[in-house]
Amino acid sequence: MRHDPESVGFVETQQVRLFTRDEPLTLASGRTLGPVDVAYETYGRLNADRSNAVMICHALTGDAHAAGWHVGAKGPGWWDNLIGPGKPLDTERFFVVCANLIGGCRGSTGPSSIDPATGKAYGLSFPLLAIADFVEVHRALVRHLGIGRLLAVVGGSMGGMQALEWSLSYPDEVAHAVIIASSSRLTAQNIAFSAVARRAIMDDPHFLGGDYEAAGVSPNVGLSIARMMAHITYLSEDAFTEKFGRSPQNGERTPGFGIDFAVESYLDHQAETFLERFDALSYLYLTRVMDYFDPFTDHALPRLERPVRYLVVSFDTDWRFSTSHSRRIVRHLEGARYPVTFREIKSPWGHDSFLLVIDDYHATLRAWFDRALEVGT
Amino acid sequence: MRHDPESVGFVETQQVRLFTRDEPLTLASGRTLGPVDVAYETYGRLNADRSNAVMICHALTGDAHAAGWHVGAKGPGWWDNLIGPGKPLDTERFFVVCANLIGGCRGSTGPSSIDPATGKAYGLSFPLLAIADFVEVHRALVRHLGIGRLLAVVGGSMGGMQALEWSLSYPDEVAHAVIIASSSRLTAQNIAFSAVARRAIMDDPHFLGGDYEAAGVSPNVGLSIARMMAHITYLSEDAFTEKFGRSPQNGERTPGFGIDFAVESYLDHQAETFLERFDALSYLYLTRVMDYFDPFTDHALPRLERPVRYLVVSFDTDWRFSTSHSRRIVRHLEGARYPVTFREIKSPWGHDSFLLVIDDYHATLRAWFDRALEVGT
Repeated sequence: MRHDPESVGFVETQQVRLFTRDEPLTLASGRTLGPVDVAYETYGRLNADRSNAVMICHALTGDAHAAGWHVGAKGPGWWDNLIGPGKPLDTERFFVVCANLIGGCRGSTGPSSIDPATGKAYGLSFPLLAIADFVEVHRALVRHLGIGRLLAVVGGSMGGMQALEWSLSYPDEVAHAVIIASSSRLTAQNIAFSAVARRAIMDDPHFLGGDYEAAGVSPNVGLSIARMMAHITYLSEDAFTEKFGRSPQNGERTPGFGIDFAVESYLDHQAETFLERFDALSYLYLTRVMDYFDPFTDHALPRLERPVRYLVVSFDTDWRFSTSHSRRIVRHLEGARYPVTFREIKSPWGHDSFLLVIDDYHATLRAWFDRALEVGT
Repeated sequence: MRHDPESVGFVETQQVRLFTRDEPLTLASGRTLGPVDVAYETYGRLNADRSNAVMICHALTGDAHAAGWHVGAKGPGWWDNLIGPGKPLDTERFFVVCANLIGGCRGSTGPSSIDPATGKAYGLSFPLLAIADFVEVHRALVRHLGIGRLLAVVGGSMGGMQALEWSLSYPDEVAHAVIIASSSRLTAQNIAFSAVARRAIMDDPHFLGGDYEAAGVSPNVGLSIARMMAHITYLSEDAFTEKFGRSPQNGERTPGFGIDFAVESYLDHQAETFLERFDALSYLYLTRVMDYFDPFTDHALPRLERPVRYLVVSFDTDWRFSTSHSRRIVRHLEGARYPVTFREIKSPWGHDSFLLVIDDYHATLRAWFDRALEVGT
C-alpha cells in the first residue's frame, strides 16, 4: 500500500447517533425516523474561531470516505484528488467533513438497518426521503462537531443538490455553496434512466419485495444492470470511444454473446465491484430522492442581506446533467440577486469529470476556495 | 377498425421456404442454416419490365408488415405513413417488398424455430448472424419474386445497414440505396447500451441458457428492461421533455416506487406491448449483428462504371445514430466516387424520426423516389 505525499494519510470512518428513537428525525414527508446513525470522516483541523469548516456532500453511490486512506485499502477516498495538503481543498487550512447519506448503506441508517419497531431490517418500510432530509441530518452532524456556520458546502451531482438545498433553506448557516455537475430538476430522460434501473432491481426475483436480506439473497442481477446503465450516462460518447473504441477485450474478436468488446468488459467490471459495496434498496431510495427534487418550485427565494455566495460548475460533455441544468440553477439564483460565479469547464469525460483532475476545474476550485477563506464565514 | 383512404388496404403476410435442409444457406461465418423460411409482404404491382421493385429492410424490432392493415389489427404496418397510394413510396407506381429478418421471431426462421437436427428449438445453438446474411436471404426472396435488379433498397436504422451492405456487395443488383438514421460502425456507447440489454436478458433466471421456451417460461423481466432502455435512446432528451416533462401520471403526485411520473408509465407500456410481439433470443441475435457490422473495413470499394446512387439521411437530434454516423457513410461512399445525396433533417424527435411523418423528410424521400423511377434500374 502506498499513498501520495499530499494525502491526508490514514483515516477512519466514525459513527455518531444524531437522532434517537425517542427523539427522532422528522422527515420532509412528515414521517419520523429514529435512531439515525451517521458515518462520517473529517480531514484537517477546525480553527479556533470555527470559521474554516467545509462540508462535502456525496453523490448517489459515494460515502463518507472522501479523502485519505483506510488501512488495507487498495485506493484512497473518492475525492482524494481534491482534498489534502496543498490540494484545492487544502487540509492545512480547511477543516473538511464528509458524511454518508441516510438511506445509504455505508454506515448511516438506511433501509437495510434494523427497524426498532419490528427488530427486522426496514426494507421497503423505510420512509421515502428527500434532499431536505439529508440536509437536516448533516446539519445535526455539523452542530455535533461544534460548527455554527459553514464556510462552504460542496457537492457534485446529487451532492450539488444537497449544497443547493442547504443554501436555500438555511442561508444563515452557510457562507458559500459549490454546486458541480448537478441539477435542480431532473428531466424526463433523467427520470427514465433511473426508472429503468429501479425496475431492474425491483423485478429481480431475488428482490423479494425488499426483504431479500432476511432470505439470504440479493437482487444482484438487477443491481448490476442498474450500475452498468448508469455508467453509460457517466461518460460522454467521445470518452467511451477514446477509452474503448471497438477494441476486442482479448486482442482478437471472439464473436458470440460473451464479453468480446473492451467496453463490455469495462461495464462488467463496474457491476462486479459495485455489488461488493452497494445495496439494492439504497439504490432505490437514493435515486428516487433525485426524481422528486425541485427546490425552485418548493422554495420562494427571499432577498437576503447576506446571501450565500455560489459557485456553479458544469462540464461541456456531461449529458447526464448537462450545462443546461446548471444554467437553470444560475438563472434562479441570479433572479434572486444572489452572487453566482458560473463556469462551464471543457472536459472530454462527461459527468464523471467532477471526480477527475482537470486542470481548469481544479484551478477554478482552488481559486474559489482561497477566496472563500478570505471572505470568511 | 378504420384505415385511411391512402392505405394499401388489407394485406396478409406470406411465407416462403428459400433454403432447405439439403440446400442450406451458407452464412458469413461459414456455418449453414436450413431450412430457411421467410415471411414477407408486397404492396403495389411489379411492372412489365420488372423495373419498379423497392425492397424495404426493417429495423431491430420491425417485421414484414410494413404497410396496410391486417384483418382485426388495431393499427397499420410500421411504415404505413411512407408506403401507399400517393405516399412517397407510391404503390400506384412502385412494387414494394418487405421481409422479416432471419434471427427474428415474426415468421422467418430464428432461434425459436425448430432445429431439424434435434427436433427442438435452436435456442443459443442458432448460428450467429451478420448483416450480410440478411442480404443473402433477401436476395433469394427477390429472385423468388422474379426480380433481377432492384430499383431501390431502403432502410432505417438496422434497415439502413442492410441497404448499405447490399449495395456494397452487389452493386449490379441494386440501382438506388436509401440509408436512413443508420450507422456503418457502432460506437463503444452504442455497443454498451446493447450489451447491458443483452445482459438483462441472459441473466434473467427465466432465460435458462436460452431454452426457456421448452420450459414454458420467458425472460420477460430482462426483455422489458432491454426494451425500456432502448426506448430512452430512440427519443431525444428534448422530445422526452416535450412529451412528458415531469408530469405526474395520475394528475397528482403519488410518491413512492410505483409509477408516478408520466414517463414511467410510457416506458412501462412500451415494455408490456413489446413482450406480446417479441422474443428474447431474437433480441440477442439481432442486436449482436449490429455490434459486429463494419462494412467499410470488410469491403474494399472498387471504382464502378455504374455505381449505386445513394441517399443518406440523418436527423439532427438523433443520438442513437447521430449525424456523425451518416457523415462517415457519406465520406466512404464519396471517397469511392459513388453518387451520394446527403440530408440532415431537422426534427425534434431523435432516432424515432425515421418512422414519423416529418414534412422535409417525406418530401425529400418523395422527390428522391420520383427521380429514382425516372433514372430507372
